[in-house]
Order: sequence, then C-alpha cells, then structure tokens
Amino acid sequence: MATLDDVLSTIDANQGGALDRLFSLLAIPSISAIPAHFPDCDRAADRLADELRDLGFEASRQDTPGRPMVVGSAKAKTRDAPHVLFYGHYDVQPVDPLDLWTTPPFEPRLADGPNGQRIVARGACDDKGQLMTFLEACRAFRQNGGLPCNVSVLFEGEEETGSPSLPAFLAKNAKTLKADLALVCDTTMWDAKTPAITTMLRGLVIEEVVINGANRDLHSGLYGGAAINPIRVLARVLADLHDADGAIALPGFYDGVEELPEEVAEQWRGLDFDDVAFLGEVGLSVPAGEKGRSTLEMIWSRPTCDVNGIVGGYTGEGAKTVLPAKASAKVSFRLVGKQNPERVAQAFRAFVKARLPADVTAAFIAHAGSPAIALSTRGEAVRRARRALEAEWGRPAAIIGAGGSIPVVGAFKRELNMDSLMVGFGLADDAIHSPNEKYERSSFHKGARSWARILAALAT
Amino acid sequence: MATLDDVLSTIDANQGGALDRLFSLLAIPSISAIPAHFPDCDRAADRLADELRDLGFEASRQDTPGRPMVVGSAKAKTRDAPHVLFYGHYDVQPVDPLDLWTTPPFEPRLADGPNGQRIVARGACDDKGQLMTFLEACRAFRQNGGLPCNVSVLFEGEEETGSPSLPAFLAKNAKTLKADLALVCDTTMWDAKTPAITTMLRGLVIEEVVINGANRDLHSGLYGGAAINPIRVLARVLADLHDADGAIALPGFYDGVEELPEEVAEQWRGLDFDDVAFLGEVGLSVPAGEKGRSTLEMIWSRPTCDVNGIVGGYTGEGAKTVLPAKASAKVSFRLVGKQNPERVAQAFRAFVKARLPADVTAAFIAHAGSPAIALSTRGEAVRRARRALEAEWGRPAAIIGAGGSIPVVGAFKRELNMDSLMVGFGLADDAIHSPNEKYERSSFHKGARSWARILAALAT
Repeated sequence: MATLDDVLSTIDANQGGALDRLFSLLAIPSISAIPAHFPDCDRAADRLADELRDLGFEASRQDTPGRPMVVGSAKAKTRDAPHVLFYGHYDVQPVDPLDLWTTPPFEPRLADGPNGQRIVARGACDDKGQLMTFLEACRAFRQNGGLPCNVSVLFEGEEETGSPSLPAFLAKNAKTLKADLALVCDTTMWDAKTPAITTMLRGLVIEEVVINGANRDLHSGLYGGAAINPIRVLARVLADLHDADGAIALPGFYDGVEELPEEVAEQWRGLDFDDVAFLGEVGLSVPAGEKGRSTLEMIWSRPTCDVNGIVGGYTGEGAKTVLPAKASAKVSFRLVGKQNPERVAQAFRAFVKARLPADVTAAFIAHAGSPAIALSTRGEAVRRARRALEAEWGRPAAIIGAGGSIPVVGAFKRELNMDSLMVGFGLADDAIHSPNEKYERSSFHKGARSWARILAALAT
Repeated sequence: MATLDDVLSTIDANQGGALDRLFSLLAIPSISAIPAHFPDCDRAADRLADELRDLGFEASRQDTPGRPMVVGSAKAKTRDAPHVLFYGHYDVQPVDPLDLWTTPPFEPRLADGPNGQRIVARGACDDKGQLMTFLEACRAFRQNGGLPCNVSVLFEGEEETGSPSLPAFLAKNAKTLKADLALVCDTTMWDAKTPAITTMLRGLVIEEVVINGANRDLHSGLYGGAAINPIRVLARVLADLHDADGAIALPGFYDGVEELPEEVAEQWRGLDFDDVAFLGEVGLSVPAGEKGRSTLEMIWSRPTCDVNGIVGGYTGEGAKTVLPAKASAKVSFRLVGKQNPERVAQAFRAFVKARLPADVTAAFIAHAGSPAIALSTRGEAVRRARRALEAEWGRPAAIIGAGGSIPVVGAFKRELNMDSLMVGFGLADDAIHSPNEKYERSSFHKGARSWARILAALAT
C-alpha cells in the first residue's frame, strides 16, 4: 500500500507536467469583469472539467446566470473517509495597465527571483496557480492507489466580480456540495518560508457612483464659473470620506466593529510583523490608516475605505478645456466584525446625496457586498492542518487574518452551514491584481505537497 | 466699379460652393492634442495654403517646432489702404466622448435646427467655420475687382493646445505680420440675432498634476488601510481648491483681480442677460460660482478654477479592488485683470505640495499660461465695425466679454504691439469642445457678409 511519502515523491516527479498543465490554464484570458472575455471564461471552465475527469472525478461545467461553475466529485479509497469540498476560482483580474507588464500577461513564463524561480502571468497566484496545487495533490494520490478523503471540487468564475451567482448556486446544489469541511485555497503564507492558516477575512462593499451635472460636456471658457463641475463635487465627497485622523466619516460606519480579542492581539504581536519591510517593498514608509492602530490591524482587523478608480472629463494627452457633464468613482469598503454590508452601502449613498449641490444628481451601481468572516482557530481541522503544514515547511503555521474578502467562505457558512479551512501559498509580493503577477515555483510545488499532507491528516 | 452690394450679392450667389469648401476642410481631423493626428494638421494647413493661393494670396505653410502656421498676404486694389492681419486656427478639439456624437465628427452634414439649417462637425464653429467666413468675404472681393484693404492672414494649428509655438513665430515674422489691426474670428455673437464685438478675454493657466504613491498598483485587500491612496490625496487637493462660498482658495489667487468698471457693469446690466435660459439650455438652474456675483461676472470678469479631467485606478466595466499607484488631474484657471499666469501656476503647485502626506509625491505638467486681455471699447476700428455689423444684422452690436481665452490676442499686443478686433459668429449652444458641435448656416453666410462690410468700413 502506497504511503504519504510515495505520494509526495510522485508530486516531486510530476513537476514538469504540473507546470505544463498550469501554463495551459494560465494562457486562457478568463477575465470575468470584461464581457469580451466571457468566452475565455467558458474555455477555462471546460479545461478544468476535462482536467478533473482526467483525474477520475465525475465532473461537469454547470451554467449560471453569469460565468459557469465547474463541479466534480471523487470517492476516497476507503469507506468512512471524511468529505471535503475544495474551492478555487478560474477567473482573473483585468490586466491594465498593460504597458507595465514586462511580458504579455497571458503568455506564462518562468523567471528568476530572490526565492528561486517564479511563474509570471495574470492568475499565476490568484487563483489558477493556487487551485492547481490541489489538483496536483489529487493526481499524485490517484497514481498511488486513490484519495484519502471523499473530495468534491467547486471552481467558480466570478470571484473577481463579487461572486453574484454563487449563493443561489450553492442553495440549489446544497446536496451535492455540502461536505464536512470546505478547503479554500485563495490566501497567502506568512512569508516565503512560513505557511499560514487564515481565520479572519474582511468583508467587502463596492459602490460605483456617477455624479451628473450639465446635460452635456461644456467649454470651460464659456461656462466655467457659472456651471457646476461634477469632478469638483466628486472630489468633495471623496475627500470627506476620511477625517483628519484617517477614520472613515460615514455616519454609523463603525457599528459592529469590535476590538481585537486579547488572545489574537497577543498572537499577532508575536508574529513580529515588519511594518518597514511590508511598506518598503512597495515604496512606502508610513502607515496611512487610522491613527493609533498598528499596520496589521489596519490591513486585517480594521475596516477601510478606498477609491479603486476615478474618471471624468478629458484624460488623454495634452489638455482640453472641457467642463465635463459627469464624473464617476468606484469606492470600496473592507468590512470587519459585524458591520452590515447593506447598511454601509446605504450610508455611503446617503453621504454622497447629502453633498450634492443644486442641479447635481448621483447614480449608484452596487458591485459587491459581503460581511467579514471570523473562523474558529481551535477546531480539530485547524489542528491537523497546522501539523501537516509544519511537517512540510519545517516551521509552525501562522494563524493570520487577511485584508481581502473571499465571499465564498461566508456563502458556505450561510448556504451550506459548512466551515472553511483557508490555506494558501501566495506571498505579499505576488502582485495579484497588478502587472507582472507571479507565483513562486516553490509555492506551487510545496503547495501541492502541503495539500497531500493535509488530506492525509484529515483522513487519519 | 463694383460696390459693396455687388460683393454681398456675390457672397449670396457663392453659398453652395462656400459650403463645399468648408465641408472639405471639416473632413480633416486636425486634432492638435493627439500626436496620431499631426499629419492631419499638416493636411489642413496645406489645404488652407492652397485655398489662399486660389484667392490670389501669396501664401505658404511655415513649419514650427509644433504644428505648422499658414501665412498669406494680398494687396488692396487701391493704394494707401489700411493693412489688416486676419487670424484663425485650423486645429480642433479631441472628439471624445465619441459615442455621444449622432454622426461621425469628421463627416460634416447639414441638419435642421430652431435657427434654420446648421452645419454639424468637429470644428464647424471652432474655428474652421469662423475662419472660412473671412475667406469667403475675400473671395467675393476678388470676384469684384479686389480687396479694399491690404490683407495678411495667419492660420494657427495649436490654438487648442495653448499656442506654444506662437510667440516665437510672431517675433521671428514680425515684419511680415505686423499690420494696423488684427481681425480675430474666434468668438460668439450675443445671441442668434445680435452680433457682438468682444473686448474682454479671460486668461488661462492649465496645470496637470500627477500624484504618486506606492511604486506599483496594489491589491486593496492586502494593502487597503495601510497604504496611502493617491486618489484620496488628489480628491483632498481638488476639494480644497474652492471655499464654501465658491471662491478659489489658492493663496494670492485674487491678486490683480479688479472690480468691473462701472460703465461696463452698467452696459452689461443693459444686455438683459437671461441666466435662466443660459443655464437651462444645458440642464442647470443655479449659478455655481462665487456667492454674490452675477452669472455674467462669473463667466466674463471673474477668475475660475475647473478640473477638466481626472483619472486614476480601474475605470473599466465592473470593479477591481486595486489601490492605484497614481492618480492625475488636469486643472485650469481662467484669469482676469492683472492676474499673473506664472504666479497662479506656482501658487497651485505650492498648494498641492502643502497637501501631500508622507510617501506621496506630485509631478506637474504646464499645458498653458496666458494673461487676461481687456481691449479699448472706444477706438475707431470698434466704431466702424459696430456700424458695419449693425448694417448687416439690423440691430446694434453688443460689446461683450468672453470666458474663454484667445492667447493670440495677447501675443499680438506683446510681440507686434498690435490691437485686435474680435468679431465672431458662434452661438452659446454651438457645443464647441463637445459632441455634435455645430455652426448655424446663417452664422456662416451672414458672417461672410459681415466681414465684407467690416473690410469695406475699415477702408473708408
């Protein structure tokens, strides 16, 4: 009978093929935010369904009102094995600004870096590289007698656009998808050498606001001074969103925000987080959030407000003396604790409306809304996963928070009453959502080995 | 010997050909702000030089460090005639947002409107339609024995980008270009039935500011809260530019701004300006400028600050949780009285720099800088032009200000010590710089007749 060591050796031996399989997935520009790429999303889904069938899963692409889901399931080699549902997403972020990419984003390549070789492509980390770590672990088990757990798989194609089709899909397919535990691979390690389990996730609200003034663009010479400028109105709104101490000024925004439990605060202090290096790596030196908060609090346990995009008037080369008819911004809020996404969105809309002068109107588009998540750090699954990760990486796994939101974790809890174990192998410098996104080759390889160990540990 | 009436009859008879000639010029997309259109600017210049030669002018295209100038000259039929220099510009504004044009901007067409037929195209009014009124007047004189004045012509191709090559060109060609009087056709009528002579022009400063934060775009989930957001910094700067009463908050900005002389204020009150109609036509109702000022003051005699364009982060469809590395805005100031463009630009830069938090830098690009102009309303040329315009339009010409700046008028004064007479036939609703720019066919036709009358009046 094959041992875990045999499985790990198979993963080591499979490395070349694993890279080929990942590269072929990375070459598909499955950008879920851009309609022109919807057919590419379909292609990526089909590709993954094929891959799963190749691994002995029953698998199918399942259509939704948005991008399709891929669902698969395979039995464990033994009876009474636990049932896990693995989640990943095949959609990726848009690639602009394209001119900052050293090589085309959908032509994956290997490059050298301080941690050895890295895989460079849009989606290399988020989330194609991450989800493929799990499939490579499954492949190695299949080549060594079978899976230690009953494994279902769910791959989503709308994670980067707020997962609009997910809740209804989960509710409809609850019977198939409900497992003892969800495994979610969309998070980071503590650093290149230290694995991590993520137990806190911030929620997310994204609102787009369009400020409308005159019924057409005007000449600023003819109308300037007399006609209201929507950019000026928008700037006032956005400037007012933060007070002088960096706190968010929406009335009621902090309702449901709690102080960090002392035990978690204590552990975080023990992580010995290096503010200077964290900010220094991206060219910054001073934490820009709420006064009196540590950087880790700012990015993990405190809510935020950011403008993700703004546009209005003439933005081409040179100058144009236009007084634009409209201006718009995409504003996102990261939520923590019990902050209510719906109430935050309403507070934002009221805040904007309260700042509109005569003749100016605002229109809103909701792009996302999900509450924050806090998982237990003390369950059996976390204990086993920590042990498995420590065996692979040679040091204890950190229990961390994450600034980003992963809506599926909340949806699993709400729709399927299922807990999630969040383990991922991304690094802070992976430039996900940015030009030249990468994934360490060691993350890809040792990630697969880590999942093999975790599956084995969960089955014990 | 041909009379002025013969010349006017010839203009009436030439209408069809005049439209053809204008349409062929309008079909050239001579956008001076966009490098891809530089060859089109060259073509427009060549086209005008040909046109002038066809009218018996000695004419040539003359290259500059930017877009070329077109210079022409023709002798009067009599000796001792005065010498005028006519100025217009063949470059046009960019056409975005293109989707708001009913028909393609460089496929000129006739359409019906409340004032009869109109010519629709980018540049129909600003300034191709306007400059062609003068050439059609010259054509009619040529068909009736010759010009009453010695006429030089200067067509510029950089008016929409702040006329960077103009001052040096004037200085270098002072001998050829210096005339008794400049005629500038780039302004409006008082309304569709009332001609106007413009004697006050606001100056213009355009500064582009780029706010830089992190060294790359960041994921707002990973860095949001801790990393400074350049859009937030920019919003604060732009919001601070105006105080609660609509006044501009740059220190020293109002230095050199004078109250309107009582005689001018009196005349403006007599114009019986209709605020409600002026703003109502573009969908607005409340003047948005400094408290306690009339709308005419806001657009003619008070300085302004407008944001003409802003961009940062993700501006495509959907949402992207990016925390951008930079954000930028194009900010313009309309100047009056003795405001110093250089000092305003410096004050703006200092104002921005004073609002930069740690880790944030600002870069600036100057796009334009010209002081305000006030011409005498009492000279002989103005008197003769008013009489000529009244004869054509059947009612007295209004003496008005204009909110836009026409840098050439200042340059003529400084470089050539030459006064300008500003007469134009645009209307407030011509949508210059906006989609569906138009020029009334009556402006085009009666504009040519007006110039014939003015040239005759100046020669008397």
